[in-house]
Amino acid sequence: MAFIKISDLPEKERVKGYFSRVIHTEHMTVAYWTVKAGSPMPQHSHPSEQVTTLIEGSFEMVVGEEKRILDPGIAATIPSGVPHSGISITDCRIIDVFSPPRDDMKS
Amino acid sequence: MAFIKISDLPEKERVKGYFSRVIHTEHMTVAYWTVKAGSPMPQHSHPSEQVTTLIEGSFEMVVGEEKRILDPGIAATIPSGVPHSGISITDCRIIDVFSPPRDDMKS
Repeated sequence: MAFIKISDLPEKERVKGYFSRVIHTEHMTVAYWTVKAGSPMPQHSHPSEQVTTLIEGSFEMVVGEEKRILDPGIAATIPSGVPHSGISITDCRIIDVFSPPRDDMKS
Repeated sequence: MAFIKISDLPEKERVKGYFSRVIHTEHMTVAYWTVKAGSPMPQHSHPSEQVTTLIEGSFEMVVGEEKRILDPGIAATIPSGVPHSGISITDCRIIDVFSPPRDDMKS
């Protein structure tokens, strides 16, 4: 099945206010997030690289020592192991892509 | 530099009507496309896996033997080497992610 209706995927609240639907392929994990306004994402890191793209809303993100407000049209790249955190300023829609796949997001 | 304003990236028309801005990381290529209505993408394949997400518009896509109209909220997964093609029904915004990175898209 090449085609996936994202809303058919099971939704999981992984951190309070962060609701994900996730596709895993051989080399990647793609996470489609809806985030409630004012939800903090605690600092964390993982071996997988990450690219974050804001689709809708406004999100304050910290990657390593850098901080920026992400709006649609701004992306963030997070190398393997770099600590990152954030807080949603408004309700947001975010797409995160990871490689290698996030085995910890397979459940 | 963790943060990237996508519109600051150089834009390249890779196929007639298909304009990309591209981020390459160690393991991934992320391509942000704007596509003009009625633009065919000829059948092609590549060793990198691909996940396509429609952000805006309507796009008819063929992956292997499967065909579907992609609207926002529909994703397509294309394993390594599988032929795929398509045509934009309207102007579209599309995000493609690839792993391993697309060395052929580095110029």
